[in-house]
Amino acid sequence: MSDRPGPESRGAYTHFRAMTTRWGDNDAYRHMTNVTYLSFFDSAVCQYLIENHVLDVETSPVVGLVAETNCRYFKEIAFPSIINVGMRIGHRGSSSIRYEIGLFRDDDDLACAQGFLVHVYVERKSGRPVSIPDEISRAVAPLHRHPAN
Amino acid sequence: MSDRPGPESRGAYTHFRAMTTRWGDNDAYRHMTNVTYLSFFDSAVCQYLIENHVLDVETSPVVGLVAETNCRYFKEIAFPSIINVGMRIGHRGSSSIRYEIGLFRDDDDLACAQGFLVHVYVERKSGRPVSIPDEISRAVAPLHRHPAN
Amino acid sequence: MSDRPGPESRGAYTHFRAMTTRWGDNDAYRHMTNVTYLSFFDSAVCQYLIENHVLDVETSPVVGLVAETNCRYFKEIAFPSIINVGMRIGHRGSSSIRYEIGLFRDDDDLACAQGFLVHVYVERKSGRPVSIPDEISRAVAPLHRHPAN
Amino acid sequence: MSDRPGPESRGAYTHFRAMTTRWGDNDAYRHMTNVTYLSFFDSAVCQYLIENHVLDVETSPVVGLVAETNCRYFKEIAFPSIINVGMRIGHRGSSSIRYEIGLFRDDDDLACAQGFLVHVYVERKSGRPVSIPDEISRAVAPLHRHPAN
Repeated sequence: MSDRPGPESRGAYTHFRAMTTRWGDNDAYRHMTNVTYLSFFDSAVCQYLIENHVLDVETSPVVGLVAETNCRYFKEIAFPSIINVGMRIGHRGSSSIRYEIGLFRDDDDLACAQGFLVHVYVERKSGRPVSIPDEISRAVAPLHRHPAN
Repeated sequence: MSDRPGPESRGAYTHFRAMTTRWGDNDAYRHMTNVTYLSFFDSAVCQYLIENHVLDVETSPVVGLVAETNCRYFKEIAFPSIINVGMRIGHRGSSSIRYEIGLFRDDDDLACAQGFLVHVYVERKSGRPVSIPDEISRAVAPLHRHPAN
Repeated sequence: MSDRPGPESRGAYTHFRAMTTRWGDNDAYRHMTNVTYLSFFDSAVCQYLIENHVLDVETSPVVGLVAETNCRYFKEIAFPSIINVGMRIGHRGSSSIRYEIGLFRDDDDLACAQGFLVHVYVERKSGRPVSIPDEISRAVAPLHRHPAN
Repeated sequence: MSDRPGPESRGAYTHFRAMTTRWGDNDAYRHMTNVTYLSFFDSAVCQYLIENHVLDVETSPVVGLVAETNCRYFKEIAFPSIINVGMRIGHRGSSSIRYEIGLFRDDDDLACAQGFLVHVYVERKSGRPVSIPDEISRAVAPLHRHPAN
């Protein structure tokens, strides 16, 4: 683990969203339990898709299902902090998108945790992987990593 | 609060189900956070209904929605305890069922917490309250309180 | 249940706090699961106490433990809504405080759900109920119900 | 993602523990939400450590903090399934242990999801990484991967 990259700064992400913590997020060690960090990953991604009108949980015939998640933890976050969720697209395949996420506590500039979530697009009825719908590619285009990074 | 009834014993419940706790259930006070106690209420009720083939989340045209929940806390439970969830029907109206629940830690005979969950049956499309379907009345009949209680 | 009071409006509460929802809050019925509503109760109360410097989870010798929770559900809330948590003090005993809570979705003026959470103050080491510390009484004084209500 | 290894069978794990699911685990897609899969990772590891008397959340001067988690999802699990959590040690460094976890639904022999959790041992007061305590190394020795695998 000695060669793992350190925490990134906010500048490495292209889109942010502030989210609140909850009393029950803290575990017996009195900081947010490791699992809960991940709840900000899918929340940020799905909220972005819903607000951009490319995900309707009830009716979309093609949806992204989570194929992999990963999180590395650098510094604790504890309720009642605000979490600023940074997002960018790390990789886009023909049927999958890898969203990279950094969690920034209150005014911190370095990530307390960072990781990724891979969505694989499937036809809902059959469960078969399909190409990413064009409207989704267009909607997430602004999330691509800045050229300078 | 001085006149509130104390914890009941297992004999006051008609059906039991053992459930496991999770690391993240414990909060900063190092016992299960108050909210999580309630997660055993709907889990026990819905599991009973699903296993008795009277609830299909995908297709049932009439479902019970939660109208009220209540929990009183007597004694702490902490991960990794087993929770024995006791259930009984407290009241059955024309369109609602009040399930009364007691949570028993490991081998305890007195409830650590007890409360209730009220399901109101609604037609799923319209959201309108309807009479409890007969098949559900039959399925939950064994949960009615023992005559002796 | 026919005589239960209906949802209150925002004017019935004395303090508000906006909180975010999460993808996993929605259950198989595609709205926030009943248990999660309660997570906004203790979060709002404890955040208020922490921000007013009368609760330190690590060091406070006297803390409020949850003795009872209750929630009645009127209207569904679904991710990604914002929840405006309204608070007021409903009753203050010698060692307990009953916080009354209403959850308001986005710009709604009527509560989607309302209920209460009772804190009983205990000496942390012994677990014995004690009088509410003066500094806490002072801190929560602004939460008392408006005279006009 | 084409070259990622497929799901393992139960034989690849050295220790198992059965855990129950909850109503609220299912999300709007009507299967367990991706985040909740991870809650079985730390629960299985910490329960093992607590039951083997090498973790006391209140008093242990040296504890394992989560440095990284990862999960790959192969097949959905839905409430009310039982989850059989398979564990093994994947790697043991001087101050870290990588637990590899597979989640097996009901009687399935192939994992629905698999991943890992890395604990780094730290001195609790200073937060500094320390060597894994001997008593912990001994306690987890039975979890090492079978030679044949």
